[in-house]
Amino acid sequence: MQEKKTKKWQSTTKKDTKKVNKPVNKKAEKKAGTQVTKKNSRRAPQKKRSSKKINLPKVKVYALGGLNEIGMNMTVFECENDIIIVDCGIGFPKDDMLGVDLVIPDFTHLMNNVDKIRGIFITHGHEDHIGSLPYFLKNMNVPVFGTRLTLGILENKLEEHKLLQNAKLNNVKAGDKINAGCFKVEFIRVNHSIADACALAITTPQGVIVHTGDFKLDTTPIDGEMMDIVRLGQLGKEGVLMLLCESTNVERAGHTPSEKNVGVSLEKIFSSAKDKRIIIATFASNVHRVQQIIDASINHGRRVAVTGRSMINVVNAAVKLGYMNVPDGVLIGIDEIKKYPAEKITIVTTGSQGEPMSALYRMAFSDHDKVQLTDKDLVVLSSSAIPGNEPLVGKIVNEMYRRGVNVYHDTSVEVHVSGHACREELKLMHALIKPKYFMPVHGEYRHLIQHKELAEGMGMSAENIFVSDVGKVIEIDSEGARFSGTVQAGKVLIDGSGIGDVGNIVLRDRKNLSESGLIIAVATVSLEEGILMSGPEIVSRGFVYVRESEELINGARDIATRVLVDALDEGIKEWSKLKELMKNAISKYVFAKTKKKPVILPILLNL
Amino acid sequence: MQEKKTKKWQSTTKKDTKKVNKPVNKKAEKKAGTQVTKKNSRRAPQKKRSSKKINLPKVKVYALGGLNEIGMNMTVFECENDIIIVDCGIGFPKDDMLGVDLVIPDFTHLMNNVDKIRGIFITHGHEDHIGSLPYFLKNMNVPVFGTRLTLGILENKLEEHKLLQNAKLNNVKAGDKINAGCFKVEFIRVNHSIADACALAITTPQGVIVHTGDFKLDTTPIDGEMMDIVRLGQLGKEGVLMLLCESTNVERAGHTPSEKNVGVSLEKIFSSAKDKRIIIATFASNVHRVQQIIDASINHGRRVAVTGRSMINVVNAAVKLGYMNVPDGVLIGIDEIKKYPAEKITIVTTGSQGEPMSALYRMAFSDHDKVQLTDKDLVVLSSSAIPGNEPLVGKIVNEMYRRGVNVYHDTSVEVHVSGHACREELKLMHALIKPKYFMPVHGEYRHLIQHKELAEGMGMSAENIFVSDVGKVIEIDSEGARFSGTVQAGKVLIDGSGIGDVGNIVLRDRKNLSESGLIIAVATVSLEEGILMSGPEIVSRGFVYVRESEELINGARDIATRVLVDALDEGIKEWSKLKELMKNAISKYVFAKTKKKPVILPILLNL
Repeated sequence: MQEKKTKKWQSTTKKDTKKVNKPVNKKAEKKAGTQVTKKNSRRAPQKKRSSKKINLPKVKVYALGGLNEIGMNMTVFECENDIIIVDCGIGFPKDDMLGVDLVIPDFTHLMNNVDKIRGIFITHGHEDHIGSLPYFLKNMNVPVFGTRLTLGILENKLEEHKLLQNAKLNNVKAGDKINAGCFKVEFIRVNHSIADACALAITTPQGVIVHTGDFKLDTTPIDGEMMDIVRLGQLGKEGVLMLLCESTNVERAGHTPSEKNVGVSLEKIFSSAKDKRIIIATFASNVHRVQQIIDASINHGRRVAVTGRSMINVVNAAVKLGYMNVPDGVLIGIDEIKKYPAEKITIVTTGSQGEPMSALYRMAFSDHDKVQLTDKDLVVLSSSAIPGNEPLVGKIVNEMYRRGVNVYHDTSVEVHVSGHACREELKLMHALIKPKYFMPVHGEYRHLIQHKELAEGMGMSAENIFVSDVGKVIEIDSEGARFSGTVQAGKVLIDGSGIGDVGNIVLRDRKNLSESGLIIAVATVSLEEGILMSGPEIVSRGFVYVRESEELINGARDIATRVLVDALDEGIKEWSKLKELMKNAISKYVFAKTKKKPVILPILLNL
Repeated sequence: MQEKKTKKWQSTTKKDTKKVNKPVNKKAEKKAGTQVTKKNSRRAPQKKRSSKKINLPKVKVYALGGLNEIGMNMTVFECENDIIIVDCGIGFPKDDMLGVDLVIPDFTHLMNNVDKIRGIFITHGHEDHIGSLPYFLKNMNVPVFGTRLTLGILENKLEEHKLLQNAKLNNVKAGDKINAGCFKVEFIRVNHSIADACALAITTPQGVIVHTGDFKLDTTPIDGEMMDIVRLGQLGKEGVLMLLCESTNVERAGHTPSEKNVGVSLEKIFSSAKDKRIIIATFASNVHRVQQIIDASINHGRRVAVTGRSMINVVNAAVKLGYMNVPDGVLIGIDEIKKYPAEKITIVTTGSQGEPMSALYRMAFSDHDKVQLTDKDLVVLSSSAIPGNEPLVGKIVNEMYRRGVNVYHDTSVEVHVSGHACREELKLMHALIKPKYFMPVHGEYRHLIQHKELAEGMGMSAENIFVSDVGKVIEIDSEGARFSGTVQAGKVLIDGSGIGDVGNIVLRDRKNLSESGLIIAVATVSLEEGILMSGPEIVSRGFVYVRESEELINGARDIATRVLVDALDEGIKEWSKLKELMKNAISKYVFAKTKKKPVILPILLNL
């Protein structure tokens, strides 16, 4: 009986599926059991089945990233021999991860189950959703599904990592359904700060699970496509087993303003700055924002030049794929700007977070070879500072003011709107989906908890809400849903080309070195004869100005010499003991003299 | 003629002055030429004099801190043989000042003119206005003038530095006027986030200069005393030569809300949390905030315990000096909280910026020996995160949520208001003072410029506005005001007990060390014989896990050995050349293997 039910469910979904989109890459894997189906294909009749689905296969849901942090989004759905993955993002190093370039999820559990993976489904093309894919695909070359712009951005990234040739990329569009083992994944249009973003409705043997991805509701979106609340509401009416919903803006009341509001502000700025060159910095991936900048430029007879590597990449991809509408002759190369008067030029650039070495940073600090900022320029930071970045942004703004530049940023004018749902939009999502279970995602712990409280406020009972953590498994069967064990999960730090060769001990050393520098004491010893042969020499870095602290350094050398000679005289021959004595003596001396605690590194050579 | 005028001006001011407040410290210097005068003493008749003041002594105005930065406020007024100083604050180390504890102004110019200094006038007791005084007074023990609470807080600080005994502290109150050489300084009540804050009206031979200090306009202040706009307006009517006005909130439209609003929010929170212990974190110096917390506690039958060293210091000083009104039996020791049920306790604590090791941080991370946070607690962060501190605050909030604590902070409820004037209050100040010249202070460059634009918008002409920088001198005489030269100025970094022994080179080393760690290569060489005696040994810190990177470290050792042996074989005997060869070889090898650039430190010992 139970086997039959399972089979029936599988055949139902198989019957109405067929491939509609060609994979971008010819090698795209058909064997993996993934198939794209037509829009409007019939859904598995879940509601009716619900009373009989006893002993249908369990479904497991767990995140490998994106919980208790903003970034590194990655969620896994597992059912018998099938695994599908939603997103594969990078995390951003925290302040205490000194020297770390970026952070990726720990893939160990998936590496151990690589045969089960049917595909990775990408909700949209932001770094925190696609950034870890190169590291993932290097080890596990499974099929990737995403909308055109998402894959367009991903292709650039894979090309850089020399992985594009072999990648199995599959274009889908909103409305498409893909069979992946015992799962079926439907892409559903949402609004966000990047075009072509989707939520996913994942049909599983236990019912439908909706993952919102990142979203907002924009009733006047730039590309004319509002979030598909009809489809989401349909799913809700048919019955949704579980909702995974993003939590970024759960602390903000009301609604997120429409992207169109930024267009209105830009129009005002362009109208009032008729004699200025206009430079606008924004996130490269915000295709609609760039479109609005281009539209305003066209209205005011300006040409547009694009600068900053990621901005050029995205604009090229978006124009090529038809996500941006730019009449011929509007876009010019950054080299050509000198051919036009300042008031006929708009420059679109990266660097809105004040990132050192970004195009805007280099412009502000006279280090950009094509653009020098003067009092003939008006700069718009069409962005808001990511919390913690304010000092970086402030630095660049101050420098621009110093050059007489007119600066607009979001404290004064509405030149930026968020891409994430505020509380009222989150409530709308809950009201549409009406899920049986709820797992808040995409947030720090406080966001997850406040999202839980929001759901409770809408009538959900606390025991149906799963505030989870990376690696924590939620198991769903006919009896219900519960936490059930864990899988290996965590952060892998990327520093240079090293993956995971930097961890807590190394970071602690870096922190200690960064706070007071270090003192090295080196000596050559003949252990056999028990005598000091050479040194100790004292070398320091990042401690104090050595030239002005000769006395201190000499004092340290004297102390080290005395301790070492005494110890050797006493017949001490243990390497570690001799080093420890030197270290302690120098440490004590230096602290007494300076109240500083540099790292002390004793090194002995044997002769 | 001109001499007579000068004398007349001096005698006028002397005639109507006398001491009204006893100096706190008996040694307070009377010889320095400073005298406190009664409230309502007549002012020098400036307006009438203005047409005849030709060749009266020039007045110089310059800042040694507080321009192009928030913090380290210090302004100097100089006239012939007299110097007075307004405020002497610390600056906060920026992110790139690794390991620096705090920053003080460069006092060199004042040290060279110490005989002229007639006094330091403190506007209020915040760190960025008094924090550098211990470092200043250690070198130049001049009289200090401030209101009672300001001096109360300062005394604690001087005591810690063992400077209180000899300090020349002079209590003044709003309305008092102090003669200081050719200057006369009047204290004028303003509202701010600390009690007893004052603006200063400085009568100089060239006219009256008003320095606002930090201020806001609070029509319903907690202590019943609104900013003295009548006196400020009187001064304006009589004619003000120059206004120095703070610029912190110039980017914010409208008015700063009243401190009383926070009381209303607190009352709501207390009413709705009848079964919870309430813990409120705020800035220690915000005496009125603490008063409101105590008032709400009394209303709801709660005892109040205070924790955190600076909070205890300030509350003790404020209660002792009568700035807080606390009925007997309300304040209890932190040890006594276990005697009362949770719902009868309020705890007031430091740590609202998420500072590691603050009382709140220790509570959140179970490291506080008296207070453990649970789901029976409600925590209010009565503060806003200083820009850049959000991740620190977020960390502590997440940890509290993890413990089931109910957390209120300013994104959700009005539990904090700023202490600084927003645009409308700044405009009020300008409208009251109607100065001839204006120098925006207390702001980064962008704030100063926007404040300049605000003044221009009110009708001031650009040439009368001085957007200055530290050390830049503004000279005022009968001909007008102008920039005229500079004095030595800058930042002195304090690290441990070292003052100024850390600078750019040391900081650059720390930064390099913090980003990729270091590799040390040590060898003993006999230069005489041209042979390698021992080593090279490779030691690393903060680079990679050495145990897991044995191959890499061995490779580096082999390279270093080969280079060194080859060089010695070639007869190279220059120490620096040998070291450079080793360094370059290791650097190249490591970068090729890891794409990392650790600091490479070659050390050679001669035998």
